[in-house]
Amino acid sequence: MSMAEEGVLKGITVLDLTRVVAGPFCGAILGDLGAKVIKIERPEKGDDSRAYAPYINGESLYYANLNRNKYGITLNLKTEQGKEIIKGLVKKADILIENFRPGVMERLGLGYHNLIKINSKLIYGAVSGFGSYGPYKERPGYDIIAQAMGGLMSITGQKGNPPTRAGSAMGDMLGGLNLTIGVLAALQARERTGKGRKVDIALTDCVVASLEQTIQRYVVSGKNPERNGNTYAAIAPYDTFRARDGYVVIGCGNQKLFEAFCRDIMKKPEIIVDARFLTVPLRVENNEELKGMIEEWTSKRSVEEIVNAVLKAQIPASPIFNVEDVVKDPHIAKAREMIVKNSHPVMGEIILNGNPIKILGAMPKIRKPSPILGEDTESILGEYLNISGEEIRTLRKKGVL
Amino acid sequence: MSMAEEGVLKGITVLDLTRVVAGPFCGAILGDLGAKVIKIERPEKGDDSRAYAPYINGESLYYANLNRNKYGITLNLKTEQGKEIIKGLVKKADILIENFRPGVMERLGLGYHNLIKINSKLIYGAVSGFGSYGPYKERPGYDIIAQAMGGLMSITGQKGNPPTRAGSAMGDMLGGLNLTIGVLAALQARERTGKGRKVDIALTDCVVASLEQTIQRYVVSGKNPERNGNTYAAIAPYDTFRARDGYVVIGCGNQKLFEAFCRDIMKKPEIIVDARFLTVPLRVENNEELKGMIEEWTSKRSVEEIVNAVLKAQIPASPIFNVEDVVKDPHIAKAREMIVKNSHPVMGEIILNGNPIKILGAMPKIRKPSPILGEDTESILGEYLNISGEEIRTLRKKGVL
Repeated sequence: MSMAEEGVLKGITVLDLTRVVAGPFCGAILGDLGAKVIKIERPEKGDDSRAYAPYINGESLYYANLNRNKYGITLNLKTEQGKEIIKGLVKKADILIENFRPGVMERLGLGYHNLIKINSKLIYGAVSGFGSYGPYKERPGYDIIAQAMGGLMSITGQKGNPPTRAGSAMGDMLGGLNLTIGVLAALQARERTGKGRKVDIALTDCVVASLEQTIQRYVVSGKNPERNGNTYAAIAPYDTFRARDGYVVIGCGNQKLFEAFCRDIMKKPEIIVDARFLTVPLRVENNEELKGMIEEWTSKRSVEEIVNAVLKAQIPASPIFNVEDVVKDPHIAKAREMIVKNSHPVMGEIILNGNPIKILGAMPKIRKPSPILGEDTESILGEYLNISGEEIRTLRKKGVL
Repeated sequence: MSMAEEGVLKGITVLDLTRVVAGPFCGAILGDLGAKVIKIERPEKGDDSRAYAPYINGESLYYANLNRNKYGITLNLKTEQGKEIIKGLVKKADILIENFRPGVMERLGLGYHNLIKINSKLIYGAVSGFGSYGPYKERPGYDIIAQAMGGLMSITGQKGNPPTRAGSAMGDMLGGLNLTIGVLAALQARERTGKGRKVDIALTDCVVASLEQTIQRYVVSGKNPERNGNTYAAIAPYDTFRARDGYVVIGCGNQKLFEAFCRDIMKKPEIIVDARFLTVPLRVENNEELKGMIEEWTSKRSVEEIVNAVLKAQIPASPIFNVEDVVKDPHIAKAREMIVKNSHPVMGEIILNGNPIKILGAMPKIRKPSPILGEDTESILGEYLNISGEEIRTLRKKGVL
């Protein structure tokens, strides 16, 4: 990865007014890909996530991960001078992202329809719990609300257990990714039309879209899909199986893989011609019996032994990694650079999540650490709006910055 | 939503060589946003997911959801004439996406470096289990493998339970979204540089990126994050709570919300000043006691009663929706159009998942149903390569189409 590489989004300026997770994640992705991202935080407290653990030397590593590659300024959007400053920046920006509750930007006089009067090419990306239209638009939203109302918790978990949240802020992650797609797609349209657009993302919508076949399964059967551990409703065998020393994943996604697994690995060719297991839908229907037969084989062997044997036959299999395994893995952490070091002025050397969007010759890259609150106020306002250091001190005293 | 609306990606042509989930999901998103997507499938069997339930009249609804808005042609890439045809299409395409195992396209003579000789502006997007470089590049990958090796399963599930898969193909969903971002970002760079790029997405990488603060938590503490039900490691109270008739979600993401919840809803202002609960990190540390105190209040009330009272105070709360609730919800299904009807020539009226990328004035839209295998071979090859109906019949007999 050469230092001279340019990110694909070089030349694109993003105003990032977002807080907490979904919005900041979008800003971080755009920054990783080379955009210049200016994060705007309220004076004194800044982003709520600056209060989230884990900490090093009083700074939040949670915040650092989601706000790398951003310049940070403080700005009080409730003051007249604050509004003037943001409008000045909007004139020079390509993209603005925000995740206030719908209506907040309008009440500040900074809604999409006001801002495009200043810059008709502006792409305006909003992400909220339920979006800017529809009966729930006023409801506050967080990741866990989206996972709950988007249906994901109802289908995640072991049989007979309570609804279960995906173990990370998955609703926020999906929201941030969809917002990124929206603003980039709108940017593409702008090349053709010369006009900006408003992108309106709801976390709950994003979770619903991620349910894939679950919706169709319900509509066709009339039966609510239930929590069913690690079994996949559309394919079998495709699950976790009990090994002698833990659990192992084996996935036979098509007939060829299934036949190879029975014949070459388990040495039980009779399963292939068993009337209960002849097709994918039949195997799904009779999955419990099939799983029992496979566990008879897996439970006598170690995870390592099984993974090696199954992979040797080109059939998908894997151990289940914990976070430590991920962080230490030579492929994931090192070769794919999904665990990256970053040097932060207060925290020292820290570990951040890599970016999975590997664009060959223009790799995603962490060019700068997350800002200390207000770190770049002076340099950014000087560069973009020609505001002097003295004016900045005055504005700071007035509570504008 | 006016019929005259153009999608933001109008004018962009995508060759979609992908199968199963992650890749097709990317093609469907690009199509929903207005790109012309040509799906290329092997003759006779087509995409593996054509064999996945649920079915209507012998056609897979699983496939229909992930392949709406695509034209479908069959093509045998192992034949010389098949290679010539795909090269002819590449000349006229903006984006090509594929999810073969790394090396397969190269062995067919259709690798990125060959194709950019034909069209230097081509954006080439690849998605696979582990990516095209690194020690595991040859390993086969599926969603469940990515969820397992990306660490997500290890942190999902109830305390003391086995590692748990997110209930949908989340690794594939994340892969499709990241691939979409990659090709759109590369398209933006092309406007500046005139050159295409290769985007290389690994499902496992995408899952790792979605772990957000979990990685930092492990690195700082040295302790592996454990499965902990619906508790979020960075914020409290932010969880599911036992109600009289089920579970309810309440999320107090900052101090103000927490204080309002204790004072105005539970009428227990003494909790606010309790030394155990003074800050976010303290509440996380003493979450079990705090949760107990909240459940004392929630367990005496119904989900509806709690959600209404808490939302009235502008504090995030929700019920847990099952798939039926989602499909019937006036906000999610109707207003946000996340559950959409589509008319399919064989299946009749079907229900597909909506697209959450709401671009106002250029909404995502289902313009055509998924193709029957090879449905558009004649029209697409006629339009793009001027191949006659008679030639097509000959090519079909030879097994090229």
